[in-house]
Amino acid sequence: MNIEWHHFFSTGASSITGSQIRQFFALTERPEVISFAGGFPGNEFFPQEDISQALSEMIMEDSRQSLQYSPTEGSYELRILLAQKMNREGGGYCEAGNLVVTDGSQQGLDLLSRILINPGDPVLVEEPAYIGGISAFKSYGGQPVGIEMDQEGVIPAKMEKTIIKLAEKGRKPRLFYTVPNFQNPTGITTGFKRRYEILALASRYNLVIIEDNPYGDLCYDGEVPINYKALDREERVVYLGSYSKVLIPGIRIGWLAGSRQLIEKVTLAKQSADLCSSSLGQQLAYKLTRDGYVEKHTKKLNCLYREKRDTMFAAMEKYFPANICFNKPGGGFFIWVNFPAYYPASKELLDLALQKNVAFVHGEGFSSNGGGKYSARFSFSQPCLEEITAGIKTLGELFQEIESAWMAKTANCR
Amino acid sequence: MNIEWHHFFSTGASSITGSQIRQFFALTERPEVISFAGGFPGNEFFPQEDISQALSEMIMEDSRQSLQYSPTEGSYELRILLAQKMNREGGGYCEAGNLVVTDGSQQGLDLLSRILINPGDPVLVEEPAYIGGISAFKSYGGQPVGIEMDQEGVIPAKMEKTIIKLAEKGRKPRLFYTVPNFQNPTGITTGFKRRYEILALASRYNLVIIEDNPYGDLCYDGEVPINYKALDREERVVYLGSYSKVLIPGIRIGWLAGSRQLIEKVTLAKQSADLCSSSLGQQLAYKLTRDGYVEKHTKKLNCLYREKRDTMFAAMEKYFPANICFNKPGGGFFIWVNFPAYYPASKELLDLALQKNVAFVHGEGFSSNGGGKYSARFSFSQPCLEEITAGIKTLGELFQEIESAWMAKTANCR
Repeated sequence: MNIEWHHFFSTGASSITGSQIRQFFALTERPEVISFAGGFPGNEFFPQEDISQALSEMIMEDSRQSLQYSPTEGSYELRILLAQKMNREGGGYCEAGNLVVTDGSQQGLDLLSRILINPGDPVLVEEPAYIGGISAFKSYGGQPVGIEMDQEGVIPAKMEKTIIKLAEKGRKPRLFYTVPNFQNPTGITTGFKRRYEILALASRYNLVIIEDNPYGDLCYDGEVPINYKALDREERVVYLGSYSKVLIPGIRIGWLAGSRQLIEKVTLAKQSADLCSSSLGQQLAYKLTRDGYVEKHTKKLNCLYREKRDTMFAAMEKYFPANICFNKPGGGFFIWVNFPAYYPASKELLDLALQKNVAFVHGEGFSSNGGGKYSARFSFSQPCLEEITAGIKTLGELFQEIESAWMAKTANCR
Repeated sequence: MNIEWHHFFSTGASSITGSQIRQFFALTERPEVISFAGGFPGNEFFPQEDISQALSEMIMEDSRQSLQYSPTEGSYELRILLAQKMNREGGGYCEAGNLVVTDGSQQGLDLLSRILINPGDPVLVEEPAYIGGISAFKSYGGQPVGIEMDQEGVIPAKMEKTIIKLAEKGRKPRLFYTVPNFQNPTGITTGFKRRYEILALASRYNLVIIEDNPYGDLCYDGEVPINYKALDREERVVYLGSYSKVLIPGIRIGWLAGSRQLIEKVTLAKQSADLCSSSLGQQLAYKLTRDGYVEKHTKKLNCLYREKRDTMFAAMEKYFPANICFNKPGGGFFIWVNFPAYYPASKELLDLALQKNVAFVHGEGFSSNGGGKYSARFSFSQPCLEEITAGIKTLGELFQEIESAWMAKTANCR
């Protein structure tokens, strides 16, 4: 008889939960579905020929570097380039020794959780926040505590109030997790002044800031404010970067930059987690960064994604009823949509949308305090322009029906 | 002033320790050093042209599969092939749904530790055992308990005695970790009969067996006994496989096969750990497995590594003093060497060897009970034939000096 595996699971295993977004994976593979769900880069923007050529050059030039195991902390050459990039963009003073290459920035979140979170620790997060961050913290027993945002990002007064409230219960948060640029899921960029205020709060209450910045380089209007990492004078900011959005996700290459004390511990944790990141991926990232290709490609992406964003925003303005609120993000992949409270919960809206072969992500998964019931995340990164317009139009019709039903209902009640 | 990061580390972070082998990485990069330290495949055996061509074909054929995010559990096509491989080799009845693709088998060890180990749990391991296994268990608070081996593998009577002794202290192990084929670090292959006995013990004491098999296909004489996974009738065996030794480590592709109940939980843990494995690596593994290339390449590797093994064994027989004991493994990468107790500890021997630009791994890191002081692991996989002979000759001279000094000393004492 087969053993009952549930008896073997550790206490910690129960806090490991899945992301609804990954559950969409199978669904969004179906060709008839227009998906605004996944935060995946557009397939049509992958520079397949250039990548193919770069891979074959580097493997033939130095197969050892590309195919053998690499150091746990990552290729030295790549880390030098990444440190230069960080310094150039005001990432604080950064050397190769301040960096670890990770399997996408998700692994950075996982390793940080592993070495910084004790079960039961409160972790301050944006409300709403990136699902992958929430699930990494939770999987090590962390308890995400959401801080209300406005269009400038997390509100410092609310943050301080939360810290004081937690202190009254004898609890002390030690981490604040933020996606400051074109946030996932809201698209909001934390303002420049706001970053100073948050950093001052972090200093006052001795918090570590985890600055997760996969979208900062995908900037469609103007510029993003300077990084927390560059403003930090106390080494309390840990920065997470990624090649997933500006090049390709399929190599799983990101990086983590921070204090050497932290980097040492992260490296040990990574050694036990997977020995090292893909050498093939690291060499590709190195070659294409060194040759200036990534930067050039990012500029091209900015034009292409800007068009997608504009198309989605225009379609929403045209087809969505006036009571539905949404923003126009300055970059990244996401538009956050708020429905009126007389709508069905966004989870039910999603079911209705799926019947019409359109997908998005309902808001609850991003919330750590039960919010998001009438919100949803729309990603414009993957569908083509025609699909964006068609999908939003379909949803607009659905929402109009809901409006009409509600109008009829309220009219009857009068 | 900079913050003091040590104050931020979690309780669990203290149990994360490094592997001495990875510390050798920098050292063994030095061209003047002949390294028998790392368990890395030989650089000269990487089929760079074939890999380069396969990559470029698959990227041009289907860039989405190779460059986009992939499902957390891994590419369906690859998992089908891996399930077929497992079934063909007697891996028990295995379907795609019984498999998760991992970042090398090290990630399999990490994910299993995460979901199966509570802090303080005893974990039965071979004595000596693979360092990466020990460090994964420890990093989740597991306490490796070594079981004595003979040339047939772990000794069942010793295993049972250990379980009973632990029970007397109110402790119950739930896991047994083994590398049954050409074990890292001893090169020992667990005998066929022995596997039955261990499995019966596992059943009697309700243990899960983690069967880690990166070397099974690198078999230089005869055949390896059937897998634990194939003998298992209770779904209590979890199997870990890897492309690192039979193809290349630089793509970080391994797999984990087991009960569906387990696979579900592992998939959730992986989602939070790094979302998914490299799509580029998975597609390469898929293409080269599907086309029969990996199998053909493995046959070639078996001839090439056999020559290296024979060269190292012959050199040891020729140059090492008669009191030094070592085995001739039937496959894999490693020869385990036992020194007489009148030798300096192997840690000191290593220091002496490094002065002569030869490296190996001293035995203590592989032990969970303070053993290994007079043992060392020699890997023949990386150096070329000439280097193997030269390195062993150099060490032979060093060991002869030690013998002479000891002879002189004991003669003086008489």
